[in-house]
Amino acid sequence: MPGWFVTFEGGEGSGKSTQVARLAERLRARGLDPLLTREPGGTPLAEGIRALLLDPAHRVGALAEAFLMEAARADLVENVIRPALAAGRVVLCDRYDDSTLAYQGAGRGLDAGLLATLNRAATGGLAPDLTLLYDLAPEVGLGRRESSGGANRLDRESLAFHARVRARYLELAAAPGRFVVLDATLAPDELERRGWEAIAARLALARS
Amino acid sequence: MPGWFVTFEGGEGSGKSTQVARLAERLRARGLDPLLTREPGGTPLAEGIRALLLDPAHRVGALAEAFLMEAARADLVENVIRPALAAGRVVLCDRYDDSTLAYQGAGRGLDAGLLATLNRAATGGLAPDLTLLYDLAPEVGLGRRESSGGANRLDRESLAFHARVRARYLELAAAPGRFVVLDATLAPDELERRGWEAIAARLALARS
Repeated sequence: MPGWFVTFEGGEGSGKSTQVARLAERLRARGLDPLLTREPGGTPLAEGIRALLLDPAHRVGALAEAFLMEAARADLVENVIRPALAAGRVVLCDRYDDSTLAYQGAGRGLDAGLLATLNRAATGGLAPDLTLLYDLAPEVGLGRRESSGGANRLDRESLAFHARVRARYLELAAAPGRFVVLDATLAPDELERRGWEAIAARLALARS
Repeated sequence: MPGWFVTFEGGEGSGKSTQVARLAERLRARGLDPLLTREPGGTPLAEGIRALLLDPAHRVGALAEAFLMEAARADLVENVIRPALAAGRVVLCDRYDDSTLAYQGAGRGLDAGLLATLNRAATGGLAPDLTLLYDLAPEVGLGRRESSGGANRLDRESLAFHARVRARYLELAAAPGRFVVLDATLAPDELERRGWEAIAARLALARS
């Protein structure tokens, strides 16, 4: 049985990390053994890269940031995601290559063609079977982060930056195919229900 | 007065790092204030990347390695090399983008076109005015490293890997223009004399 690859995208404070955990629990309740991972991170090297990126002591430029994200991605894809898919597992990944197009592309203004090239190299062309986009106005998401005290370097970017990120995500999601857009202002239980609906329907189809 | 940019390339144990220091001393003796730096490294972020790359605990794949090198390069070019050149300084850099073509390209077998794209992005097209290639048979260079106890992860690659690296360097140097190839089996004093000859002649020309 081939594996199945779901990615979770969205702005800061969209609640997607909570949803990844909840949806993994739903998969386990159906007797599956999903692999949960995240970007940047998920391997010792990539977690080291994550620490460099999030360290407030480093002023990380847009290009260096993009290359670091791709290094972490290449390591995660090669050592974690591909082996899990080859073993037939469902892989849930909190952020993947769309994040680079949204954050480093629309957010920081790097060239979209360059980023597409980097993404293709880092992933070896491995695309998700399904991407859940947790869509939220940045004012709302950032407000949630501030009040939870969990703000990091990326969160502190300007509201205009986050508005560009959101707009790019919605553009990407407009292409027919792998995206399902979810309204992240919904209550967590309802959001879980809708996320599960999207996963269950497509997973059943993929494995039928 | 515009700055002037010299890079130092070569295999392991070629003695180039010693030569960078000696040639910087020669420049100082002429009243100049050269900036010495190295790749990967030269900024807090890039030294953090260097530590990740050289940590024997990490098995770094070829792609992740290339992206990490480019991240370090982008940070160094933006924050150190370009500002120093803009201030009219002579910049001496121990390794630069040719290292990626030789090590990640010929050594590890990554696509040369991809690496050229990554290099162009990371450097923003900033090319050295002069590149000194310290050429040495890998058997000799690796023997030197072993006996000095300074072997690291890259040094431990196979002899065939280092032979491919050397061959690619020589190919790159065959293009007319910025390369001067030096025989790294020469005694350090003679190597310094020849390196200085190359630098002094071209620097005088560039500034005349």
